[in-house]
Formats: sequence, C-alpha cells, structure tokens
Amino acid sequence: MADQKSALVISAHAADFVWRCGGAIALHQEKGYDVTIVCLSYGERGESAKLWKQDGASLEGVKAARRKEAEAAAKALDAHDIRFLDAGDYPLELDRDQKFALVDIIRAVQPDFMLSHSQYDPYNTDHSYATSVAMECRMIAQAWGHNPGEKVLGAPQLYLFEPHQTEQMGWKPDVFLDITSVWDKKRAAIECMQGQVHLWNYYTNLAENRANHFRRNSGGQSGGRNAEYAEGFQSIYPRTVDVL
Amino acid sequence: MADQKSALVISAHAADFVWRCGGAIALHQEKGYDVTIVCLSYGERGESAKLWKQDGASLEGVKAARRKEAEAAAKALDAHDIRFLDAGDYPLELDRDQKFALVDIIRAVQPDFMLSHSQYDPYNTDHSYATSVAMECRMIAQAWGHNPGEKVLGAPQLYLFEPHQTEQMGWKPDVFLDITSVWDKKRAAIECMQGQVHLWNYYTNLAENRANHFRRNSGGQSGGRNAEYAEGFQSIYPRTVDVL
Amino acid sequence: MADQKSALVISAHAADFVWRCGGAIALHQEKGYDVTIVCLSYGERGESAKLWKQDGASLEGVKAARRKEAEAAAKALDAHDIRFLDAGDYPLELDRDQKFALVDIIRAVQPDFMLSHSQYDPYNTDHSYATSVAMECRMIAQAWGHNPGEKVLGAPQLYLFEPHQTEQMGWKPDVFLDITSVWDKKRAAIECMQGQVHLWNYYTNLAENRANHFRRNSGGQSGGRNAEYAEGFQSIYPRTVDVL
Amino acid sequence: MADQKSALVISAHAADFVWRCGGAIALHQEKGYDVTIVCLSYGERGESAKLWKQDGASLEGVKAARRKEAEAAAKALDAHDIRFLDAGDYPLELDRDQKFALVDIIRAVQPDFMLSHSQYDPYNTDHSYATSVAMECRMIAQAWGHNPGEKVLGAPQLYLFEPHQTEQMGWKPDVFLDITSVWDKKRAAIECMQGQVHLWNYYTNLAENRANHFRRNSGGQSGGRNAEYAEGFQSIYPRTVDVL
Amino acid sequence: MADQKSALVISAHAADFVWRCGGAIALHQEKGYDVTIVCLSYGERGESAKLWKQDGASLEGVKAARRKEAEAAAKALDAHDIRFLDAGDYPLELDRDQKFALVDIIRAVQPDFMLSHSQYDPYNTDHSYATSVAMECRMIAQAWGHNPGEKVLGAPQLYLFEPHQTEQMGWKPDVFLDITSVWDKKRAAIECMQGQVHLWNYYTNLAENRANHFRRNSGGQSGGRNAEYAEGFQSIYPRTVDVL
Amino acid sequence: MADQKSALVISAHAADFVWRCGGAIALHQEKGYDVTIVCLSYGERGESAKLWKQDGASLEGVKAARRKEAEAAAKALDAHDIRFLDAGDYPLELDRDQKFALVDIIRAVQPDFMLSHSQYDPYNTDHSYATSVAMECRMIAQAWGHNPGEKVLGAPQLYLFEPHQTEQMGWKPDVFLDITSVWDKKRAAIECMQGQVHLWNYYTNLAENRANHFRRNSGGQSGGRNAEYAEGFQSIYPRTVDVL
Repeated sequence: MADQKSALVISAHAADFVWRCGGAIALHQEKGYDVTIVCLSYGERGESAKLWKQDGASLEGVKAARRKEAEAAAKALDAHDIRFLDAGDYPLELDRDQKFALVDIIRAVQPDFMLSHSQYDPYNTDHSYATSVAMECRMIAQAWGHNPGEKVLGAPQLYLFEPHQTEQMGWKPDVFLDITSVWDKKRAAIECMQGQVHLWNYYTNLAENRANHFRRNSGGQSGGRNAEYAEGFQSIYPRTVDVL
Repeated sequence: MADQKSALVISAHAADFVWRCGGAIALHQEKGYDVTIVCLSYGERGESAKLWKQDGASLEGVKAARRKEAEAAAKALDAHDIRFLDAGDYPLELDRDQKFALVDIIRAVQPDFMLSHSQYDPYNTDHSYATSVAMECRMIAQAWGHNPGEKVLGAPQLYLFEPHQTEQMGWKPDVFLDITSVWDKKRAAIECMQGQVHLWNYYTNLAENRANHFRRNSGGQSGGRNAEYAEGFQSIYPRTVDVL
Repeated sequence: MADQKSALVISAHAADFVWRCGGAIALHQEKGYDVTIVCLSYGERGESAKLWKQDGASLEGVKAARRKEAEAAAKALDAHDIRFLDAGDYPLELDRDQKFALVDIIRAVQPDFMLSHSQYDPYNTDHSYATSVAMECRMIAQAWGHNPGEKVLGAPQLYLFEPHQTEQMGWKPDVFLDITSVWDKKRAAIECMQGQVHLWNYYTNLAENRANHFRRNSGGQSGGRNAEYAEGFQSIYPRTVDVL
Repeated sequence: MADQKSALVISAHAADFVWRCGGAIALHQEKGYDVTIVCLSYGERGESAKLWKQDGASLEGVKAARRKEAEAAAKALDAHDIRFLDAGDYPLELDRDQKFALVDIIRAVQPDFMLSHSQYDPYNTDHSYATSVAMECRMIAQAWGHNPGEKVLGAPQLYLFEPHQTEQMGWKPDVFLDITSVWDKKRAAIECMQGQVHLWNYYTNLAENRANHFRRNSGGQSGGRNAEYAEGFQSIYPRTVDVL
Repeated sequence: MADQKSALVISAHAADFVWRCGGAIALHQEKGYDVTIVCLSYGERGESAKLWKQDGASLEGVKAARRKEAEAAAKALDAHDIRFLDAGDYPLELDRDQKFALVDIIRAVQPDFMLSHSQYDPYNTDHSYATSVAMECRMIAQAWGHNPGEKVLGAPQLYLFEPHQTEQMGWKPDVFLDITSVWDKKRAAIECMQGQVHLWNYYTNLAENRANHFRRNSGGQSGGRNAEYAEGFQSIYPRTVDVL
Repeated sequence: MADQKSALVISAHAADFVWRCGGAIALHQEKGYDVTIVCLSYGERGESAKLWKQDGASLEGVKAARRKEAEAAAKALDAHDIRFLDAGDYPLELDRDQKFALVDIIRAVQPDFMLSHSQYDPYNTDHSYATSVAMECRMIAQAWGHNPGEKVLGAPQLYLFEPHQTEQMGWKPDVFLDITSVWDKKRAAIECMQGQVHLWNYYTNLAENRANHFRRNSGGQSGGRNAEYAEGFQSIYPRTVDVL
C-alpha cells in the first residue's frame, strides 16, 4: 500500500480538469495511479452561460447540472474520486476552514504530484487564486504542527496545466506528456461538457498541435516519437534525478 | 552500438567543466555513457592569473599548462575524450570553420544531452558566447543539407551548468543531480586545478548546499533522499515523457 | 443608444485620475464618450498631508475637501459622472459587497475600455490592489450567473495609466495618446489639486516628454505628428483588428 | 501615390512567411497594400529535409525548388513582390553589403509596417538573427547620412509573427488579426509547401484556435465577433493613437 | 537622539532572522544602530518539526521553546529588542489590528532601513506574505492621516534577505555586506537553533561563498577585499546618492 | 597618485554622454575625479539630421562638426579628456583592434566606475552594442594574459545611463544622483548641441522630474532632500559594503 502511486488535481471550476489535464488523469489511472480530482467550485456563476440562458435557471439547478457533467467526465477518464468543495466562483474564495479541508485531502491522498492552474490569469482571477491556494495548502500539509500525529506531506511536484491563452498567462510548458493511448477517453470526457460544445474542436486541435511539439522535442525530423495527442505542463519545483 | 549513450560538454575555458559539471561527467561515465568534453579555449589569457604571475610566462606555456591540468581533471572524472579547439579567450570567438568543426563533433557524438554555460554572464561574455555557439551548432547539426549523407542530430536537451554567481546570471536550476557516489572523483578533479586553489573550498561548499536543495525537493523533512553532494542544471528545452 | 460609447476609470484615491489619465478623460468626453470615474477612496489618510497639517483636521473634513477637489477636477475635464465608494485608504480594502457595487457600475456603464493603475507598486499597495480589484470585478461582470438577467459585460480593454515611477512599477506603455487638444482642461483639473502644488510642474513636464515619445513613434525625424502633450498607457489584453 | 500603403515581410527562410503571416499578407493585398516579401535565405540547408532525402540532391537544386515553392505561395497570397537575398542558412549571416541591400529595399518600400520573427528562438538561431537584422536595418534606413538624398524611413511598427513554439520563444501576441476572408488563399499557399505536408494540419488548427482567441478578446460570450481564422502578432514599438 | 540610527527586521517565523540577516544585525548593533527584530509568528506549526516529534508536544510548549531560542539568538547578536506578534503560521495572516500594531512599531523605530523576505517563495507562502505586509505597513506608516500627530515614516530602504533557494524565489542580491568581524556572533546565534542542526553547516558554507562574491565584486583578482564571511541583500527601492 | 579617483564614459555617439550623464561627469570632476569620455563614433550618419539637410554636407564635414560640439560640451562639463574612436555608426561596429584600443584606455584610466548605455534598445542597436562592447572590454582588461605586465583592471561598477524611452528599453534605475550643484554646467553642455535644440527642453524636464524621484526616495513628504535636478542610473553588478 505504501507503493500505491497517487495524484491530486485542484480545479477551480468543475470543467477545468477535463480540458486541461484530462489526458494526464486517464493516463495515470491506466498506469495504476489513484487520481483524486478536487473541484473548488462548480463554476456555477461564471462558466455556465448556456445553462443560465435556459428558462427557470437557478443557482442550485446550475450547480447540480455542472456536478453531473463533471462526474460523468471523471468517469470517462476512469477517475473514481472526484470531490466538490462548493466554495463559490466569480470570485472563488476559500476561508480558513475550507483551506484546511483541502489540506485534509492532500494529506489523505499523499500525492506523488499535484496539478493546478497557471500562476497568472488576467481573464480569470479564480484560476490564479486556485494555484495560490494549492501552494499554501501544500505548505500547511507539510507542517508537523498542523494536526500533529497525521502523516505530513513530502515534496510533490506542482504541475501547472495549460491555460486558455498561454502567452497572456505567462505559462511556459517544460514537459509534454504523450496522451495518444488515452485520447479516446479524453475526447469522451470533453463531450460530457454539453454546455461548451464550442470548445470541443479547440481542445482537439490543441492536443494535436502539442503532439507536434512532443515530436519535435523528442527527436525532431531525426526520429521523434510519433505521438498524436499530447498535453503540456509547467513545473514549479526543480526535479531531483539520478541521471540527466 | 546504437544503444551506446553519450553526452557532450561544451566548456568555454579549460577548467569550466570541472567546477560546473564534474559530478555529472563522472556519474554518467559510471553509468556507461561516453562523455565528450570540448574546451573551446584554454582560458589561457583570462583564467590563468597565477601562471602569468610566474617568471617567463608565455602564451604557449600557459596553454600547455592549462591543457595538462584539464586532461588530468578529465582523467580523474573517468572521461576519456577531451578535445581542445584552441579558439582563443577574452574574447572567445569562433569563425565559421571552427563552428563547423564543433558541428562535426556533435554529429560524431550524437549526444543524448549537451551541457554548457548560462545564457547571460555580465562578468564573462565568453561564457554566454559559448552557449550561443552551442545552440547555433546544435541547429546546424540538425540540418539535412549540412554535409548531406551524414547522420543528422536529433533533439538533445541542452543543460546549462551552474555559473559562479547564479542570480547575477539569471540562471535558475530545474533539476538537481545527486553526485554523492562520485564526489571523490569530482574533488580529485578539482584538486588538479593548482592555479585556482581558492576555489576548492567554494565548490565543495556549493556541492554540499545543493545536496540540501536536492533533499528538500525530493521530500523535505518527510523523507527526502539523503544526498550529500549535488549539482544543479537549467534545461533549455521541454522534456517529453510518458509519466509525470 | 446602443452606439453610445463609454469608458470607466477606476482610481484608488480621489486625485489619481487627474494626473494619470485626465487627458484621456477630457479627450474621450470631447469625442462623445460618457466617461465614468470611480474613486475607490478619497485618499483621505495617505494622500492628504497638507490637509492634515492644518489645525483641526478630521477624517470627515479631509474626505469632504478631497471630494470637492475631485469633483472640481472632473468638471474641468467635462466628466459628469464621478462616484466615490469610500472604501478607505492606506490600506484600501473592498469587501464582497463593495466589489459587487463596483460590478454594478461596470455593468451599468458597459465600458468600451477601462482604466486603472499599474499591476505592481512597491511604494503604494493601494494602487496595485485597485487594479487587481478591477480585474476581478471585470470577470464577475462577465458572469451570466451574477444577477441573472442583467446584461453581462463584453471584453473591454483594461489600460493601465502611468504610475509615478514607471520603471520601479514595471509599467511599460504600449500606446501613446495625443492630448494636445485638451491639455488646457487637464492643466485646469491639475490646478484643482491645491494640496499637491508640487506636482503641477511634474505632470506638465511629463506630458511634454510623452509627446516627444508620441512624435518619435509616429514617424520620428521623418515626419512624426507634432503632438505637444501626450499620455501613455499599458494594455492588459490583446487587441483584435482588421488591419495591422 | 504618396497614399499607397505598403508592408514589408522579412522572412529568414523561404517558407516562414507562409505559415506565420500568410493571412496578413493576403488580407493587406486585398485592402490595397503593396506587400513586399524578402526571403533572406531559401532555407536550403536546414528546412528542406525532404528534398535532401531525394537522390541527386544538390544545393543549387534545393534552392531552386524552394524558390519555386515560395514564389507559388506568394502568388497564392496575391503578393507580387517577393525577393531572395540568398544569404545562406543554418547559419544565416548577412555581411554589411547584404544589410545595405536590405536597407535599400526598406527605403524603396517605405513600409507602413514590417513583419519578422520572434526575438528569441532556442531551436533556430536564424529566426532571432533575422529579427535583429530587421531592427538594425530599420535603424540604418532612418539615418540621414546613409546614402544622403534618399528618402529616409519613418517609424513603422515591427510586428513579430508567430513562432512554432510560442512559449519557448517568449513570444506574446498583443494583436489578433481576423483572416477569415482570406483563409482560402492562405490554405492554398500552405499547400504549395509540398515538402512540409506534416505542417498543413498544424497551421490550420492554429488558425482556428487563434480565431477563438480573437472572439474572446473582441467580446467573449457577450458578443465577440465570429472570426473563424486568425493570426497573432507581437508589437515591438508603442502605438500612437487619437482614441483608446 | 535624532541621530540615533536604527533598523527593523520583519521575520515571518522566529528563526528566519538568524540564518538570513544575523550578520547584518550584529554588525549594525556594533556600529551603534538600534536593531529591532519583529517575529510575526514563532514558526510553531511549520518550522518546529523536531519539537513536534517529542512526546507531549503542545502548541503553547512549542511556542515557548521557539521564543526562548529566538531570544537567545538575538542576545548572541547583541540585539536587545525582539518582539513577537504571535500572528500564527502555516499560514501566517495578520488582521487589520495586527498590521496597525506593526505600523506602531515602525513609527516608533523610525528605521533607517528595513529587512524582510523575498517577494516570492513557492515553498513557503508565509515568507512572501511577510514582505507584502512589510510594504503595506511601510506605506501606512507614511500616511499623515494614520494616527494624526504621530511622526510619520520617511522612505527607508527595504532590503530582502537571502531565501533558502534563491533562484527558485527570483531573488537577486544587489549588495553584499562584509560580516567577517561579527561572524562569531552569527555562528553563536545559529547554534541557538537546536532544532535545526542540519542547517548550521549550510549557512556557514553560504556565508563563506558569499564572501567569495564580495571579493569578486570589490576588485576580483586585482585586489578585492579579503572578506571571509558575507551576506547578500536585494534592494526594493532606488538609492539616492551624491557620488556614484 | 594611487588615490586619484577616475571614471570612464563609453558613449556610442558623440552627443550621448551629454544628455544621459552630463551631470554625473560635471559632478565627479568637481569632486576631483578624472573623467574620461570615449565616443565610439561621432553619430555622423544617424544622429546628425540637421547637418545633412544643409547644402554641401559631407561625411567628413559632419564628423568635424559633431566633434567640435562634443568637445565644447565636454569642456562645459569641465571634462578634459575626451576621445573619439571613429568606429562608424548606423551600424556601430568595432573590430578586434578597436576593442583592444578601448581596453588600453580602460587600463590606463583604471576607472572607479564606468558608464554606458542600456542593454536593450529596439530603436537604436548601436546603443546596446556599445554596452556589450563595454562589458567585453571590461573582461579583457581584467585578463592577466592580455598584454602581460600591464596593470589589470579591478572590478569597477558599470552604470547604465538613462535611455530615451526607458520602459521600451527595459531600463530600471536603482540609483539617483543629485546634480543640482552642476546643473548650470549640464545645461550649458546641452546648449552646445545646436543640431538637437528640440531636446533641450526634454532633458531639462527629465532632470526636474528625476529630482522628484530623488526626493521621494530620500525621505518623501517626511523630509526628503530638496534636490532640484537629478540623473538616474542602473547598476549591472552588486555593490560591496560595510553598512547597509
């Protein structure tokens, strides 16, 4: 059990994890990782335009619909553990208790790596807020004096998944992951997002183009591996290795 | 033979490779890599103060002494292939033919990764020049139209080894390498540098402190690995991976 | 009425809008825009030294004096809509209700563009706070689930007006506006600031020098337009155009 | 005739202008601009892998083939003025006379704006070199003492077109151009590049995704314009305007 | 008394001031400055692993132990004024009253310069939070309307002392201070930190290596001063001088 | 004689030193420094528009006129040592011999500090080139193997003086120098520049505004020194100090 690998995704809104790291989730599940997805909010106010345009829309109704979509998407990715903190969106704000609830999850999961948003997003301050919370809670989870007796956290990598307009967010990928083998699952998860059909093609294009970057960086015209779909990530912390 | 791993170090002056990546060289030799070291110059004019203070010092004499030291250091690191382009220092400048000679070496080595200096160095423009040459020659080595028929280069990583004042050079390590097992070899190579005794302790301190960073980033107080000596490197290109 | 152009200025303290974008306000009013100015605070504690040095100074008295000055300045700029959120200064802090009040204004104005402070200011954290609030409230104003039924906001540009020490604030102008035709109005507004006479000359010098930059960038010695006074702004978001 | 608008593209290799600003070229031709394309090299050594893999490939043969492709692509974009400086590639290097030849072209064209590569490219130093030459020659073209009597250059904008891996090149677009109306021409130009079929889909995906960014920045869900294909550019110099 | 020089250290946790600026404290005390040290928290939860591993550890017990250590360290540095705001750690958060208490101290001390943490720290958000509070309270202390009648603050420099992994924190020193004459005091203060013995050697190595940087920047091989121990600092504000 | 203080200005074109550091030159002369000014070119091609518009203008005539102006300006600043390398401008390029001539001057002067341009200038590549040459020659002057037997250079600071559009050049001042006492000399030197009358007022405005920044950073409203004219500089290297 000590060898069970795990990962933790911290998603500001219910759908973010699908577009931005659905491939990583499915791939690591396939490799035997337990991937836990935490949605800090449902994106109910700010990312549910289509639902709000329907007659009789209500906050609770929108939340329920978004939750259902997110659960279906997680299932499509073979992820069995998805949680909703319901902290509200636009703006997203966690109080101390909500942060400690997130710390509890981090400690329970003991992730080998974490995934969250870019550190800057002038279009969506919820995204950068989620990442600052991820860093803060990672730190708290490492404190021996926080709930003494619990197993403290080690030093997992925090990967920032791809934001919508990378250059405006100052996001720079330093690792590309080949998700060809699980692309069908990611596409199925994407298609669970009925309210954002206009993004299906966008993220398919993106995955194809990131595969081009994967090929270039794995050998270029002189033999790069033939990835067809890929995702990019930016690391916050240095790696520690035994070979370069 | 296709599986023989290799690496290429591009060092502006004859001693740079010792302080900055001696551990990486010895470690990868130990792991079966063939590491080739290219010294673009001997550092004969600018990094040989002690020799110039001796009576009767001459350019050729200084070069010879520096070469001897560098060869001894390479040997201490178990590196059997060290080359000297003798392109001159302070300033270092390669003409087209010298660049093409470097391209020839790159193609012959077909390195799995390359090592060179930081991209900026306001104290020593030879260092940043060496890196710009490394990038340019990496590009030329990838060109199908350069010496058609030769095996072109793939897409090896270019790691920047640690400069003397990291913050002034804008250098940020994203990978720490545990060199504990080969520390004795690196120290022996360092001690070949008789003209720079004042730096022996400096780089020993540094290796110890980088090991602290290694431990922090591999798990911190909750179980980081007990490295005693480490080196840091900055990657230029993204990695391509199958698992995060 | 759908074609009525409008703009929104978000000013941390009562006088900021005068020095930093008084020309832009007067010019756009002249061009038929409705410009709304929101002063988040009066700058009553931190930017009213002269008033506090007077006998019998009180918080309410200082606020009233600052409001009067700001209203006079707005009038000098032909701006008819100036509002005061009275959120306090040094430090400036808006709670959720005050942010939502700002969102109400944004939605009511439906600005073609917004103006606020630089994103960083080590001398005055109120300034950068105002900009972070501007971004956050812009995002909330775009949310279909915030006060459903209201007209949501589009995607107006956010221009950062010139801070007092541009280089220390990391502010870089990408657009210069010719304010020659309204300079007299800006100077009149500046002269409403009786408590800060020492800045009158400063901002006149600045407007003259920015006009030099305007001329250089509009054609230089080969025919740049003869602007005499200008203001600079930094854009947060990319533009969308039909011609370069 | 004084009113004839014009633009100048400076392309390191023969095909760069197609992928990176083919839409801008076709669109401005359509709007009555005279667009001049300067290919500093044919990309004969470094960007013609497919041609070099053919039996009997020679440098002159590859150049001729590349020139033919580039001319066909220019024609597909309705650009009637394409020039080849044949300065060599991998590495690209212009001597003083070649730079002055480029200055002659700049002065003859008197462009309203110029287009070139990103300022940094760790994969391809020819690209960043081309931009540094563009800046240097723009400066020379402004000098009254260079070929006295000739009409000197004003202060045209220099737009950097999109590089292949934007984040690695530190490229950040600040303007998106709607190229929907000329997409068919750009696609036709792309299809002239028979040696790089693997990039056709890549750049089609990209144009679709950049249109998403165009829509977001022109109004988002609240009415952004329905662009289907777009290109992004980064400006080097500030704009000078009469309205924000 | 008006000529009494003073300095203020703002330390997130009880031990930070020892490692990071113990030399500066002892040196300035020796030069006749009154140095006040403010510990915003004891670091009781997050930086006291060794204490928490002991049987019967309690929050109050850990705080008391940490306070005792910090007081002993201050004494070793000849600093007579150390204060504890007890604002809690992991996460550190000051409410408005606590910030105003810090402002009271700043005004009472009227420091010639202030010292605090780096502006960014992805490992420890308490550190960067402390610096943002330092800047905010410096600003409040300058406000004539804050506790009118009190002496307002001038414009003291804010120096950022060295964080644990400088490159990851984006910290760049622009001044090196020779602490050779007080090294014994700093080492004695370091040895008060019984819970962090693993850091003693680390910070001794660091002080030795920073002395190398001191020597290089004070004259290099051509006569740099023979400092044996040094500390580095990054300035936030420009200096004002009468000679370069 | 060993105590004679000295400084070295490296100016790309003949007039640059006047606008950008005329105050520093005059002030340090007044303080007993020997200030040497090196003009790498006359700015004959690119910065002499007015002269070229005159009938019968010739390269030699323009150079002579520019030299005369520069010499007069130096005299107005009480600088007795001005040299002209005549390396040509637009573009400025120094070959190895010209660089070594500059090294000779650096060694002869043994400056306590050096002054040159910003490191980046998209309008004028001669400026950034001059700074890269200054750095390279500073390095060569430190080499014991360059002209062995000569006194090698120590580690003088390199200050970057203020460029024309600071924000576009990425220039950030970290030191402001009070030049009030020598302002009349700087203004007199400025008035020697008969060809650039349009800049007289610009640089007077600038000096006044930089004095405002001086006052702010030396104490602000609570007692900053009453400088009336100032210049700003950016340091390349860290300082080494005995007191913060």
